[in-house]
Amino acid sequence: MHADVPASNAAPLGELLRLFRDGRPRTRAELTAETGLARSTVRGRLDALLDAGLVYDAGSGASTGGRPAERFVFNSRARVALAADVGATHATLAVTDLTGIALATRRLTLDISDGPDVVLPQLGDIWRELLADAGLDPLPLAGVGVGLPGPVEHSTGKPQNPPIMPGWDGYDVPGRLAADFGVPVLVDNEVNLMALGEHTTRFADAENLILVKVATGIGAGIISNGRLHRGAVGAAGDMGHILAPQGGEAPCRCGNKGCLEAVASGAAIAAALREQGLEAHSNSDVVALVRGGNVVAAQAVRQAGRDIGEVLAGCVSMLNPSLVVVGGSLAQAGEMLLAGVREAIYGRSLPMATQQLSIVASRAGAAAGMLGAAAMVVQHALSPAVLDNELARPARVVSVGN
Amino acid sequence: MHADVPASNAAPLGELLRLFRDGRPRTRAELTAETGLARSTVRGRLDALLDAGLVYDAGSGASTGGRPAERFVFNSRARVALAADVGATHATLAVTDLTGIALATRRLTLDISDGPDVVLPQLGDIWRELLADAGLDPLPLAGVGVGLPGPVEHSTGKPQNPPIMPGWDGYDVPGRLAADFGVPVLVDNEVNLMALGEHTTRFADAENLILVKVATGIGAGIISNGRLHRGAVGAAGDMGHILAPQGGEAPCRCGNKGCLEAVASGAAIAAALREQGLEAHSNSDVVALVRGGNVVAAQAVRQAGRDIGEVLAGCVSMLNPSLVVVGGSLAQAGEMLLAGVREAIYGRSLPMATQQLSIVASRAGAAAGMLGAAAMVVQHALSPAVLDNELARPARVVSVGN
Repeated sequence: MHADVPASNAAPLGELLRLFRDGRPRTRAELTAETGLARSTVRGRLDALLDAGLVYDAGSGASTGGRPAERFVFNSRARVALAADVGATHATLAVTDLTGIALATRRLTLDISDGPDVVLPQLGDIWRELLADAGLDPLPLAGVGVGLPGPVEHSTGKPQNPPIMPGWDGYDVPGRLAADFGVPVLVDNEVNLMALGEHTTRFADAENLILVKVATGIGAGIISNGRLHRGAVGAAGDMGHILAPQGGEAPCRCGNKGCLEAVASGAAIAAALREQGLEAHSNSDVVALVRGGNVVAAQAVRQAGRDIGEVLAGCVSMLNPSLVVVGGSLAQAGEMLLAGVREAIYGRSLPMATQQLSIVASRAGAAAGMLGAAAMVVQHALSPAVLDNELARPARVVSVGN
Repeated sequence: MHADVPASNAAPLGELLRLFRDGRPRTRAELTAETGLARSTVRGRLDALLDAGLVYDAGSGASTGGRPAERFVFNSRARVALAADVGATHATLAVTDLTGIALATRRLTLDISDGPDVVLPQLGDIWRELLADAGLDPLPLAGVGVGLPGPVEHSTGKPQNPPIMPGWDGYDVPGRLAADFGVPVLVDNEVNLMALGEHTTRFADAENLILVKVATGIGAGIISNGRLHRGAVGAAGDMGHILAPQGGEAPCRCGNKGCLEAVASGAAIAAALREQGLEAHSNSDVVALVRGGNVVAAQAVRQAGRDIGEVLAGCVSMLNPSLVVVGGSLAQAGEMLLAGVREAIYGRSLPMATQQLSIVASRAGAAAGMLGAAAMVVQHALSPAVLDNELARPARVVSVGN
């Protein structure tokens, strides 16, 4: 895919639908004026969108003298998306409409190391329950979106050497789920989807943002020019294994030493606190200690924030985002983590890169990944190329516009 | 500008022209098939492009029985672009066609610190000479593109606190040149334009690349998803002031210490060589010493390559490019610099990020920035929104397609 090649006139229905996605009702005359297309062309394309149920007649608008004109509006419930954010031990599943709003959600306990042949059917069962319970099962599916806790080759949807996902390496996740649901299946790394979810639902104005997830590990998702930056093989955002300035000789699970993850992840903080005699066996233990006012834990989290900020400062110099969003379970420790991050970034970055920079806590919170998975499906399903290809299947639509 | 919003049907001429830019001749019937548009619509839009001189009749194609069909082709000489890559002491100027190929070029000695009121008229004079000498002055101008050796706010074309450009801060470069030439003027940082030039003319397949310029200073340009990543205020790619792992207490001109530029730039290498009694007062002195077989200089350049590679390793982890291009005058020292860069990146980055990574020397060389400036102008002038807006000015074109 080349980003500078927008959909052409070869995707006339998708282009027309794009206008409607702002939710505003329009008359045929307004559509003609807005597109510059011939009235007959607009009529034909609108009929095709009406036939597909993607647009509906919202009743008459104000009359300007003659017969009141019909007004048409986007049908955000024409289809639904199935979304899942799968972590190591939990998943958040949802059915969403075509604006990405969740119509039904479920949180599920699972064990990612059971492998895809166990986990994927679990997801399928829950989605079917959600569809049925909410009375949504007669609606056509737009697609399935899944976030996984490891590197994913986005073009194939296959996990790539994921360290905490035994049995998933190279597994054809889309193939398995498409066999169940018969619709396109898109898979990505969960941190990428957290970035997409924050961007599409909470920070739509931030065309350039970095989301940092601080949990057991540390990873990042990048929005560049309003689009997810996945990189050449989907490995972008691997911030946890950048050399931390204070990383020293700390051994990392990746085989290197001094990685950011080895000194500032939830796992590293918990281990350091245990060495000081504190009961810290999980991210939530660390968060509870900080919230309970434990000074040693607060200092450790603040220092982790500084370490993360030192690495982020380099990323800010390279990418000049307008927004850094800090999420993940350690972000629940409150302002301590964020304060450390801010301290280091503002201390290190050049004035020009930080003059319009905001550094904030996640707003979508635990829902970010799920919302990103839904947004990924909707973006795909309603992209002009995909939509026109789909609607062109019945012969009656092929001639529209001629 | 939102990257996910392609030009709509509101830009019918630009969309049709986009097809032609591959250089292939097409008949009316082929255009109708390729776009799915009505024959009458294609006829109207094609007439408008023919009137504007952007497409011409290339003669008849093979007949399929009846009357031979006319074939139409993109006229890359319909307009010309004026491009300049301005450095501290030199500039490369060109007149290019609409494929970005230089039709006439000139290298100019100047002093950027003379300020814009001296330098910009110098550029204007040279462009006029180039147009006249090559007999191109009757051709309409597509626009003017300028690269400058400092941060530029791309949306306004104004330099932002450029450290080596006294008198340029906030200067309205587009306003000054537009007054002379009456066409759109686009301005960007020269390193961004080097990245764009390498991408558009030499590495078009690399949708995600980092170009590093190693000269008196160190900077980077980033291509993300096939587009230049400029960041929130045009400050992206500021790699020279990222903390270098071996940076220590080295003072930097930015006021910080330990910056990559303070240990690995041409200026830093030359200073270090002088301390060891060598005559190294410029980048070219350093290059000459290395090429002449001086071991101390070779070691210094290789170590600079390692330092740059250490910082690049973090950028590779974050951005997962398929290509790192090393350019700038120090790259002329040959394989020494590149070897150090490779050593550090492959030693530090995760296998997944480097499995499909190439680390190569610049191919466009000293022309990269000028080629990028031309590409920036052509991309803008032929973008559907801009082109349709321009062609819509004469009343006769407004009704095309209706």
